[in-house]
Amino acid sequence: MAVYTDISDEELAELLARYDLGAAQAFKGIAEGVENSNFLLETDRGRFILTIYERRVRPEDLPFFLGLMSWLADHDYPCATPMPGRDGELIQTVRGKPAAIVGFLQGLSVRRPGVAHCREAGEGLARLHLAAEGFPMGRANDLGQAAWEPLFSGLKDAAESLKPGLAATIAADLAHLAARWPTDLPQGVIHADYFPDNVFFQGERFAAAIDFYFACVDALAYDLAVALNAWCFEADGSFNITSARAMVAGYERHRPLSGPERDALPILAHGAAMRFFLTRLNDWGATPAGALVRPKDPLEYERKLAVHRSATDLVLFGDRS
Amino acid sequence: MAVYTDISDEELAELLARYDLGAAQAFKGIAEGVENSNFLLETDRGRFILTIYERRVRPEDLPFFLGLMSWLADHDYPCATPMPGRDGELIQTVRGKPAAIVGFLQGLSVRRPGVAHCREAGEGLARLHLAAEGFPMGRANDLGQAAWEPLFSGLKDAAESLKPGLAATIAADLAHLAARWPTDLPQGVIHADYFPDNVFFQGERFAAAIDFYFACVDALAYDLAVALNAWCFEADGSFNITSARAMVAGYERHRPLSGPERDALPILAHGAAMRFFLTRLNDWGATPAGALVRPKDPLEYERKLAVHRSATDLVLFGDRS
Repeated sequence: MAVYTDISDEELAELLARYDLGAAQAFKGIAEGVENSNFLLETDRGRFILTIYERRVRPEDLPFFLGLMSWLADHDYPCATPMPGRDGELIQTVRGKPAAIVGFLQGLSVRRPGVAHCREAGEGLARLHLAAEGFPMGRANDLGQAAWEPLFSGLKDAAESLKPGLAATIAADLAHLAARWPTDLPQGVIHADYFPDNVFFQGERFAAAIDFYFACVDALAYDLAVALNAWCFEADGSFNITSARAMVAGYERHRPLSGPERDALPILAHGAAMRFFLTRLNDWGATPAGALVRPKDPLEYERKLAVHRSATDLVLFGDRS
Repeated sequence: MAVYTDISDEELAELLARYDLGAAQAFKGIAEGVENSNFLLETDRGRFILTIYERRVRPEDLPFFLGLMSWLADHDYPCATPMPGRDGELIQTVRGKPAAIVGFLQGLSVRRPGVAHCREAGEGLARLHLAAEGFPMGRANDLGQAAWEPLFSGLKDAAESLKPGLAATIAADLAHLAARWPTDLPQGVIHADYFPDNVFFQGERFAAAIDFYFACVDALAYDLAVALNAWCFEADGSFNITSARAMVAGYERHRPLSGPERDALPILAHGAAMRFFLTRLNDWGATPAGALVRPKDPLEYERKLAVHRSATDLVLFGDRS
């Protein structure tokens, strides 16, 4: 959660003059998303979220992210619809930073997902993959497998200080992943950050996905592997196989996995844990003092890595028939 | 702005079961108020703000604050209406902390109030003083003049480290204020924190006041003096007499000041600046590391104190006829 940029009433009025959304009736900074500043904006035309893009989101990536959200919304996927300005542009500028206004979504994220939530979330992810088919823009996964070794090269001391001996363990993991990483799985647009706080429910039902600011093109099954890491571990660090099977089953209701995709899930899940371990380790010491955000604990993903490292059971993520 | 307490979907559902407001459809932490955690809550019955009371707000004061808000709303004053639980209580408990749900208010606070805003804000403050007449509960101003010397006794080193020589200057100010502080002015319920971020406008018009968590019984004109400090200084530290006269004139449209009240405005404004200087100085080093809040700069009020110290012009705050 974060509000980095503060917007005055005058700046807001100036921004809204570039849209056809009417005048502001309410405006509040909200604690949503760790990367950007978000505001609830109410006008006489409806309710919206204003996002101001901060560090990590590269301005040149925004046309992909916002274009994707528009595409998904046009293809009946429940996500926030970006509002164009009077000039037709989805991306405007506030205080020299890129900004966008999207529709407000109802729904609540769940803190501790149960089995039923995991099934619904799996369905929502598969629907996303299907709805994104045909989206004409591309974006490489700059946090994909090829990025991990270079990223780790600057983090060896940080890993050691987190836990003595960890640097060597991670280096061995990275070699293992590099040797076995599948490269021929079906590719497509993936969310790449499909965590419980980026999924809204209404009651027990999947309602919407938010925060597409890591979306990219990569193996579709890798997106499911990210989600299995994010949704199916218990607070005590144990992996909930029932939740994982429910998530895979929910996913397969809309998009059945191929044999190679299913076989790859354990290595993809190991890699997905590595990706979040590395970026959390990177953020752990790098969060600016003034930021209204607590960095996430890299040890959570270090523990998940250990689970994947020891898991040899290929049926971990689903029943093989 | 602050969100100290995070509430899970399960805790929210448990809380809402104690109300007759329906189920949550949206729930977001919002950056409003520096003392408490606030959340936008949308249910099928409407939109609300859930406040969880953190440090500084004493639980035993909450019946006064929430009773006052209910009283004001019942007396047509535009402020958030507290919602009772099924048990009739305005104050419930979440995570062992007191909490309340109030109606959502439309309107925006202004960052840099102009003369017209000051006039409107003055009107809104007088209307508050009139609407609160007859409210049967009382609460002493624990940050009133009698509290300043004891508070400062623990802050002398902090004042010196802020600015060498400042401790002696503040001590002289406090003696000056103690010797001349008026004690026979009309008393009533005051807001006591009537800053621009606690006042909502719709367009150019006063729309509502929020954040009654410093409200107490004290001299009504002292409330105006707090507001003059909060609204009528320019960013460069100069006092805008035009804004101040507009605020007083707006106030007097609804509640004309007595001669003694008008004469007392300069000393009251000096004292009001002292109150905020002292509490900001106190907070400057005391904000916990994990708090998602930036402490406010005590030097802003140190500069305001200097203006009041040198002001001998009794007509500073309004035309005397």
